[in-house]
Amino acid sequence: MQYFRPNINSMEAYAPGEQPQDGEFVKLNTNESPYPPFDDVLEAIRREVDGRLRLYPDPLCTRVRRQAARVFNVDPDMVIVGNGSDDILTITVRSFVGDGGKVVYLNPSYGLYGVLADIQNAKKCPIEYTDDYRLPPEIRQPDAKLTFICTPNNPTGTVTPPEEVAKVAERSHGIVAVDEAYADFAEQSCVDLVHRCDNILVLRSLSKSYSLAGLRIGLGIGNANLIAGMMKVKDSYNVQRLGIAGAEAALANVDKMKANAEKVKENRRYLAGQLEKLGFDVLPSQANFIFARPPMWHGHLARETDSRPGRPTRLRAGALYEELKTRRILVRYWNLPRLSDGIRISIGTRQELDAFLAATKEIFAGYNRK
Amino acid sequence: MQYFRPNINSMEAYAPGEQPQDGEFVKLNTNESPYPPFDDVLEAIRREVDGRLRLYPDPLCTRVRRQAARVFNVDPDMVIVGNGSDDILTITVRSFVGDGGKVVYLNPSYGLYGVLADIQNAKKCPIEYTDDYRLPPEIRQPDAKLTFICTPNNPTGTVTPPEEVAKVAERSHGIVAVDEAYADFAEQSCVDLVHRCDNILVLRSLSKSYSLAGLRIGLGIGNANLIAGMMKVKDSYNVQRLGIAGAEAALANVDKMKANAEKVKENRRYLAGQLEKLGFDVLPSQANFIFARPPMWHGHLARETDSRPGRPTRLRAGALYEELKTRRILVRYWNLPRLSDGIRISIGTRQELDAFLAATKEIFAGYNRK
Repeated sequence: MQYFRPNINSMEAYAPGEQPQDGEFVKLNTNESPYPPFDDVLEAIRREVDGRLRLYPDPLCTRVRRQAARVFNVDPDMVIVGNGSDDILTITVRSFVGDGGKVVYLNPSYGLYGVLADIQNAKKCPIEYTDDYRLPPEIRQPDAKLTFICTPNNPTGTVTPPEEVAKVAERSHGIVAVDEAYADFAEQSCVDLVHRCDNILVLRSLSKSYSLAGLRIGLGIGNANLIAGMMKVKDSYNVQRLGIAGAEAALANVDKMKANAEKVKENRRYLAGQLEKLGFDVLPSQANFIFARPPMWHGHLARETDSRPGRPTRLRAGALYEELKTRRILVRYWNLPRLSDGIRISIGTRQELDAFLAATKEIFAGYNRK
Repeated sequence: MQYFRPNINSMEAYAPGEQPQDGEFVKLNTNESPYPPFDDVLEAIRREVDGRLRLYPDPLCTRVRRQAARVFNVDPDMVIVGNGSDDILTITVRSFVGDGGKVVYLNPSYGLYGVLADIQNAKKCPIEYTDDYRLPPEIRQPDAKLTFICTPNNPTGTVTPPEEVAKVAERSHGIVAVDEAYADFAEQSCVDLVHRCDNILVLRSLSKSYSLAGLRIGLGIGNANLIAGMMKVKDSYNVQRLGIAGAEAALANVDKMKANAEKVKENRRYLAGQLEKLGFDVLPSQANFIFARPPMWHGHLARETDSRPGRPTRLRAGALYEELKTRRILVRYWNLPRLSDGIRISIGTRQELDAFLAATKEIFAGYNRK
């Protein structure tokens, strides 16, 4: 349509995972928590559902910033609150990257980084992870306006050590945005680096570890000057009243979050073990999901591109995704380089994981029979 | 800070009206409804405050689009839902205006248009309203990528007839965004023009007429191709679950909204009459606020810039704003051309308006005595 900017016309939209509006699926596709939000959070939200909804929310989210500051051991003016961490990502790109500015991000990683660069008409600079999902030297681009590092990385679950992140930031003239949406399930975090590097912004989300994907609360943590500038770019009232109430209550319950995260880690170990028994290649994950490649065997219908007779073939991950969906089990699949041979499975309850595993065994058996 | 884009460093942030976090003010400064949200809406939100908050919301806001389509007599794919209409404004600028692209808007009007153009590093082209707040011929800029028309206009309350808007759109090669945040209090709307002009986008808000400023729900209505492109630019999950539930319920209660809007109009007539009795110049308003200039008289302390003895002087509107605030009554004041000689008063309850009027009389009496 002629009214749009050319970059908007030509770009591909970000495709979020399926969100079926009926509840009939075992939903292991968008990394939601299998546990409900804490009672304190639901109670705090309920207390706010009244006539005060006629009033605008606090544009500064003062209560959330104060509580987040306690959790992350920073000052409140080092925190910006967003309508989900996607909102913070959007604000970040708009703050630091102009027309044609260079945005560096890794591949494979969260697909939104490239989409946001496209919307901004920026210069996309995707860098391949090494084979073992470490940062390659080319991640250090001196002229990058913005470098995204997702750790634990979505969708691989692999982590980048904070010292590696610090090295990138120290040699960069631009911003390094560390997307830690999954850090509550990991053994390390880069939050403390914000005291050392004024160009590091750490993003956090309450969607996963706090079971609040539906409420849309994200956090950005960084140097106070960084945050002050980003506050100019955000929409004035970007976080609604119920979100403010819920986020404050959630961040006051770090212990409950940690208890849930421990359950996730236990189930992650369980799922990884079971997948390996089934012959999957499992990437080492510190997130609330696992990326795994289905096994190779001698089969007929399930072959990869290599279809020479007698060669080991791999059940196409896309076919596995489709077969699981037929059984009303949703996992995530991307037909993209380095991802098309695997699926991402969110860590659900033990029962959900067992349903997934049983279905997968059944599918494998069907393919073996053919 | 060197990391920011130069336009972000140099720009002034949008300054929202004060949102005192205690309830001790008569709050007539940000055009909120004085009436609570409808019971059906609060009930619909409460029903949604449960374990499902762990799940992402519907990225398409299907239920809201369907309900809005009924209200505005359009197809659901002609509606985009935003996190407040500010979100839709932001998406609009990012969709249609590139670096250096021309953004036309009127002066005085909603201050966010210029701020969003600054953030986008666009070329701002403010056009003065005529003295009687009609569109001047210069509003038609053939090379404008985006033209904002706010009707009823904030902060004057004046309206632009739909036929005038259509004329601008028909001669423009860009988008005409008609900000109708206050249209439920007006006698006319431009929504029907979207069937005729594929470059008209009409913005609506549930903040004012539906008493839901705290929930953050805005709507954009336009040609389906326009909306489809804007959907690529919005954040995937830009509207949270409780907002979706509340918005759907609100839009199912148009009758209740209209009943409240009638009360607002009645109180608007009352306030206008009382202000005129006090000697204010009152702009004709079709919004839920009135812009009014305090009267001129022979006084001493209350003079404008012209301080020659014996000349009629005007109580400085800024002083009136400050004096009202001391009495814990908040109205809106801008120290800007064409606005600094007046104040904007939101239409509160009759009781709130009487408190404002009594305080104003008291202030006037104090000045007259001096």
